[in-house]
Amino acid sequence: MMRIAALQMQAICGNVSANLARIEQAAKDAAEDGADLLIAPELALTGYGAGDKIASLAEGADGGQIKRLQAISKANAIAIVAGFAERDREHVYNSAAFVCGDAAPAIYRKSHLYGDYERALFTPEVPGNCIVQIAGLKLGILICYDVEFPENVRRLALAGAQIIVVPTALPAGPSGDFIAAYMIQVRAFENQIFVAYVNHARKDERFVFAGLSRIAAPDGSLIAASDDSKEHLLFADIDRHIFAASIDNNPYLKDLKRT
Amino acid sequence: MMRIAALQMQAICGNVSANLARIEQAAKDAAEDGADLLIAPELALTGYGAGDKIASLAEGADGGQIKRLQAISKANAIAIVAGFAERDREHVYNSAAFVCGDAAPAIYRKSHLYGDYERALFTPEVPGNCIVQIAGLKLGILICYDVEFPENVRRLALAGAQIIVVPTALPAGPSGDFIAAYMIQVRAFENQIFVAYVNHARKDERFVFAGLSRIAAPDGSLIAASDDSKEHLLFADIDRHIFAASIDNNPYLKDLKRT
Repeated sequence: MMRIAALQMQAICGNVSANLARIEQAAKDAAEDGADLLIAPELALTGYGAGDKIASLAEGADGGQIKRLQAISKANAIAIVAGFAERDREHVYNSAAFVCGDAAPAIYRKSHLYGDYERALFTPEVPGNCIVQIAGLKLGILICYDVEFPENVRRLALAGAQIIVVPTALPAGPSGDFIAAYMIQVRAFENQIFVAYVNHARKDERFVFAGLSRIAAPDGSLIAASDDSKEHLLFADIDRHIFAASIDNNPYLKDLKRT
Repeated sequence: MMRIAALQMQAICGNVSANLARIEQAAKDAAEDGADLLIAPELALTGYGAGDKIASLAEGADGGQIKRLQAISKANAIAIVAGFAERDREHVYNSAAFVCGDAAPAIYRKSHLYGDYERALFTPEVPGNCIVQIAGLKLGILICYDVEFPENVRRLALAGAQIIVVPTALPAGPSGDFIAAYMIQVRAFENQIFVAYVNHARKDERFVFAGLSRIAAPDGSLIAASDDSKEHLLFADIDRHIFAASIDNNPYLKDLKRT
């Protein structure tokens, strides 16, 4: 069993140290309540709407930002997934780091960039799997638009992921409302896995966010959810045994015919 | 623009002529209200729960059952999609026929069979596309469990299908409720197409059905839905222009990176 904490977070565009301080506070709060993992949104360290500032704030996975995340992880004995802007030579990726104390970080780079804003700022990665082990579970990472493509979730599930965490920056509006209200639960159900979808709170310099962070279980039910766009720290316990009947009755991964 | 009519139908197990008579009445009613297409459930001609009777009732696509469907189609000037048991030499397929007057029928054979009941009765087909043209639209066909796999819907959408019709036999229960309440709308949204999901009414000799037939639009909204398991003839107008903003803002088929 794993307890996860999802930080629906109000990030400050361009202020990495303030955003890291916010994550540090959440890590303390989450660890106090027994969480094994804290999840922060897409580009939580720079702010999603930081625009042109993002290129200059981008750092390698061996840079000071990830080292600071590791220190927060170690001090509070909690693993952390958080979005950051990753520099690799001339490329900037929209990435998420999984850190667990001193261990080498695992980095996932977003493969499906949404719209002109992201495409102007980032290089898309070839779709691929980032899967780590935590508390006896296989955890996969996607970012925002990636999870809207069933192919990305399926690929991770077929590779053994039992929970997929998704830092996101979902804007307010009809499409955002639909994605939060329907799609996350279907991604969980159609793969019989857990999906934790963690959004920004309120708004930043450029975007108004939907909030509506949520954690869906294999049977499609929600085991944690925000119904607004305020800041929240949501908790959920990840226990596959509770959903054994659903996993048995909906054997999608076994019944899928690959073509 | 195309008007479709979905017949949430109480089939009688093993009584093909009674079930064809029910479809004939619905074809008259649907045509009177201006529908171009009538959709009946999975195995509507034999009844879904007809069990061992299905093998002896199964006919080829050139048999009397499909000829009768064609006659109903011609007499009422309405195309029809209906599920039937199809015999091809020693094989019995869980199939759906698209008939439009005297034209040769188009036949789709279910590729993903659900559970021991179906696997004992039918041969699964290799996943493939059955797409027909009607009223200027490309219409694809899937059957029941097929639509629960996003791969099958995506394959049709990438091949150009703009509406997918799904005769089904969804049982009552928590999984059925979830599929009806969430998944059909997500299949429409994630491909920006229409999905018409047409279930049996009430129960038959073996199964209790969820009803809950529904037609979802590209933006994920429902344009027709039953909220119970009684018999209904549901109507919806299929007009892609109304959903142009959603199709523009959610360009999943264009943005998908094939791997």
